[in-house]
Amino acid sequence: MANSQYEYVKREFEFDRRLPPSNWIVVRIDGCHFHRFSKTHAFEKPNDENALRLMETCATAMLKKFPDIVFAYGASDEYSFVFREQTEFYNRRESKILSLCVSYFTSVYVMKWKKIFPNKELKEPPYFDARAVCYPNLKTIRDYLAWRQVDCHINNQYNTCFWMLVKSGKSEQEAQLSLKGTSSKDKNELLAQQFQMNYDDELAMFRKGSSVYREKEGKVVKNDYGDPIKRTRPILTVAHVDIIGFSFDKPNDAVALSLMNESASLMIEPYPDIAFGYGFGSEYRYVVPI
Amino acid sequence: MANSQYEYVKREFEFDRRLPPSNWIVVRIDGCHFHRFSKTHAFEKPNDENALRLMETCATAMLKKFPDIVFAYGASDEYSFVFREQTEFYNRRESKILSLCVSYFTSVYVMKWKKIFPNKELKEPPYFDARAVCYPNLKTIRDYLAWRQVDCHINNQYNTCFWMLVKSGKSEQEAQLSLKGTSSKDKNELLAQQFQMNYDDELAMFRKGSSVYREKEGKVVKNDYGDPIKRTRPILTVAHVDIIGFSFDKPNDAVALSLMNESASLMIEPYPDIAFGYGFGSEYRYVVPI
Amino acid sequence: MANSQYEYVKREFEFDRRLPPSNWIVVRIDGCHFHRFSKTHAFEKPNDENALRLMETCATAMLKKFPDIVFAYGASDEYSFVFREQTEFYNRRESKILSLCVSYFTSVYVMKWKKIFPNKELKEPPYFDARAVCYPNLKTIRDYLAWRQVDCHINNQYNTCFWMLVKSGKSEQEAQLSLKGTSSKDKNELLAQQFQMNYDDELAMFRKGSSVYREKEGKVVKNDYGDPIKRTRPILTVAHVDIIGFSFDKPNDAVALSLMNESASLMIEPYPDIAFGYGFGSEYRYVVPI
Amino acid sequence: MANSQYEYVKREFEFDRRLPPSNWIVVRIDGCHFHRFSKTHAFEKPNDENALRLMETCATAMLKKFPDIVFAYGASDEYSFVFREQTEFYNRRESKILSLCVSYFTSVYVMKWKKIFPNKELKEPPYFDARAVCYPNLKTIRDYLAWRQVDCHINNQYNTCFWMLVKSGKSEQEAQLSLKGTSSKDKNELLAQQFQMNYDDELAMFRKGSSVYREKEGKVVKNDYGDPIKRTRPILTVAHVDIIGFSFDKPNDAVALSLMNESASLMIEPYPDIAFGYGFGSEYRYVVPI
Repeated sequence: MANSQYEYVKREFEFDRRLPPSNWIVVRIDGCHFHRFSKTHAFEKPNDENALRLMETCATAMLKKFPDIVFAYGASDEYSFVFREQTEFYNRRESKILSLCVSYFTSVYVMKWKKIFPNKELKEPPYFDARAVCYPNLKTIRDYLAWRQVDCHINNQYNTCFWMLVKSGKSEQEAQLSLKGTSSKDKNELLAQQFQMNYDDELAMFRKGSSVYREKEGKVVKNDYGDPIKRTRPILTVAHVDIIGFSFDKPNDAVALSLMNESASLMIEPYPDIAFGYGFGSEYRYVVPI
Repeated sequence: MANSQYEYVKREFEFDRRLPPSNWIVVRIDGCHFHRFSKTHAFEKPNDENALRLMETCATAMLKKFPDIVFAYGASDEYSFVFREQTEFYNRRESKILSLCVSYFTSVYVMKWKKIFPNKELKEPPYFDARAVCYPNLKTIRDYLAWRQVDCHINNQYNTCFWMLVKSGKSEQEAQLSLKGTSSKDKNELLAQQFQMNYDDELAMFRKGSSVYREKEGKVVKNDYGDPIKRTRPILTVAHVDIIGFSFDKPNDAVALSLMNESASLMIEPYPDIAFGYGFGSEYRYVVPI
Repeated sequence: MANSQYEYVKREFEFDRRLPPSNWIVVRIDGCHFHRFSKTHAFEKPNDENALRLMETCATAMLKKFPDIVFAYGASDEYSFVFREQTEFYNRRESKILSLCVSYFTSVYVMKWKKIFPNKELKEPPYFDARAVCYPNLKTIRDYLAWRQVDCHINNQYNTCFWMLVKSGKSEQEAQLSLKGTSSKDKNELLAQQFQMNYDDELAMFRKGSSVYREKEGKVVKNDYGDPIKRTRPILTVAHVDIIGFSFDKPNDAVALSLMNESASLMIEPYPDIAFGYGFGSEYRYVVPI
Repeated sequence: MANSQYEYVKREFEFDRRLPPSNWIVVRIDGCHFHRFSKTHAFEKPNDENALRLMETCATAMLKKFPDIVFAYGASDEYSFVFREQTEFYNRRESKILSLCVSYFTSVYVMKWKKIFPNKELKEPPYFDARAVCYPNLKTIRDYLAWRQVDCHINNQYNTCFWMLVKSGKSEQEAQLSLKGTSSKDKNELLAQQFQMNYDDELAMFRKGSSVYREKEGKVVKNDYGDPIKRTRPILTVAHVDIIGFSFDKPNDAVALSLMNESASLMIEPYPDIAFGYGFGSEYRYVVPI
């Protein structure tokens, strides 16, 4: 019994839209109705460390599962996954990439719930929406990540003030009114003066969000002849650091390098005069013998 | 601290593609690497009734959660969800519809696992891909559902023969060779002669797949004066019936009616001469006084 | 010398987006900067009959060239071309359909200019933009055409008043102010009282726009034995008639029939109980023996 | 009379797809059925210099009309127009860009016909199809142009041989067979030995195609005090040069510079350590003080 009579519904009506090549692909996953979900499950306010750890666990699982994801950044109930510029994951088909990411993330979230919240029953199915966005070069993908981290800062500083006011006895409406129109500096002063609190002492996880990436770990091992040799292998790292413009230095460079290494070769290739490039933090030097 | 410096990455790069209006939207969800997943979890072959019940549970949860889904059809590790033609769910934005459906389905799958498989631990995260397809009229959406059910029949009949041969001692390769080029009739005869099995006696759930829809249930209640009055309310129904062309009759009409009712009004409207329409099974009569 | 080194720029970056099947495709062509173009070429105001005839000439050439266009409607510097629902013209590839239509239309416009305007030199290249829109059923394509004709009426009635006021000595700004907020009825009265003009006496071409379609012409010819037989052949027709909702009757049915015939068979097919359908004006009767 | 009843056909069904930002946009225009068109108008074979001049005239008119086109390359009946990476022409709406380009090109083609072919009547409307393609970086847009020029070379060398054979008395089929499987070198030898012809002596216009771009022309003028000062202004240039990889030097750099200047600033910006960049031919040096 052939199915040819009806197969036209696939052949004629299904389209496989591919995301344009040579673009970084970002899949951003966002909790759906998580305001209610966090109430139902009595998440701490303004931040529930366990809930954030569960999100980090999912993000880490994503990088393990899908090697073409080179970087993830998340805060609150949201995560962005950056696929490398030249990825051929499912031939860059948008529906496949989108659905697999959000489905796998959700699956891990529910499976790992019990481990992170051993005493809390999961009362309703958590679920997420997702979108895929393409960024054609390093500048725009950097600005994308900066945009998310600035958002994290703005929201977290506001929420920190809001919940301190509420916990000190104000109604939610009063707290909202107190904060209306205040600047970032105003909010820091409010915390310092009313609550003897230094915003910068809050957990970096709350203030900076979470970056997940592969770091190269060097390790000295002995070879067959007993000589010490150096081996490097990528290890998954979660860091709570400043990634705006990748302008940090010292110990955190690795966050940026996962993206930078990826694109450095692409930038050198069309310029045969460039002898070599080397990178540090967000900056790559391209050396041209003159 | 304003975020305006970076917000261009959203404003300029994010697109919200909307699915065309006045089209039935089908979201088809499909298990990813379920061949391996079903081995890992020792699903029975060719069909694991519990695994199918878990899929049905997810499908039922979908219709409860998303009222604009008017019909679902599934078999094996796949389900199709039909949104009504005029749905304005998330303004018909493809990414939203796709991601929410596949995420919610996945979430319920993991949450309900323990209940359906109390003695089987979930060993790895199950996950699904999804796609959205648009069908502009009743004919094409009917043919879409027929296509899926014919596929279910072809696959299930093949798998039934294949696993009977394997269980009777053949290697998987031998079983495959035995079935190569056989017709539907050949396969029925093979089952009858070698295994004294009538294919039509197999569970309808295996042979027909599962249809999930809302049926109107009539109920006689008493009003404030004690008079009996009739109330109808939609109840979610799962049926294992023939939906090819909706050409069934007698007790199963309801499967088709969930779609038919939806579209009947649309068909009458542009033809003012049609006095009324009434439907039975897959056929609507439009009565025109001549 | 192979070109394979560079061919990836085609293979990876070019997409052929196809318009969804079973939809009417409308290509709407619109003059670009025709306000200035009509001034440069001293078109009469509010309507230049020759300029409209040139547009009609182009539209007629389009229907001759592209048999899958079943209907065209135009007014002012704009034309809509309706491709039949099931067209496979260039496999429904949007870029092909769009570019060929607007290019051919433009080409004919320039070529035929001299014939229509023998004493006017073409001073600058006229050019048009175009868009393709899909309508999934008869109701929406009918409403599309109604939308264009209502627009034609609104614009033409306004322009008729505006230019009568300007020609009678008012400045353009004064004329504009006089018309601000006036209803359709007000405008008719203004024309009647100030200019002794009955709007309905204006050329139907100006008031109704132009419909271009194929009409079946019957002709009695003699066969090989000298017997009279009837032959029909489609002839291209331009009509200035009411097409809103196709609710006209008597002599103008043909305008609608070109669309109606196209879709009647599609409507009957999925309903086996319908014995036959016959159409008149915008209404098709489907006869069901009860 | 409001049009609101029908306006939903625009609001709900029309989409304005925008091409992704920060991408070079190429609009490639291609003659439709020009094989027949060139026969009808007795174009010389393998190349008709006048027909190519007419195409160049259209391309030049395009760059004059649309300032965001930074480069055009054409051969035979085809032209590619490159919009600058950051263009906001019609908000990057694909249908607008596509239709305006092909319509304006067609319009100029018909208008200028008489001037280029004073003794040939235009017998049928010439028309073109068009497509828009996006390239996200300098490497890919360079490779795109290389792809077109390699194609020009392959086709022109083949056609030169083919028509020499045909003019020498072979049938078209015999000529085709003679050339089957021959390499580029074989073809050059065939021309040299059978026809005493050096392929490299053919017109560069035929062998290299046509590049159209803006070149900066320096001019010494006198200022108000009679002092000589240097002024530069862009002038439109047509050149028949090698653009593959932009690896030419000396007099032709300008071809590449129109693209290079455009992108140099974009490349420097995200790297604050780069002191300055300067370009020559296809190569930009970015100087980093170390």
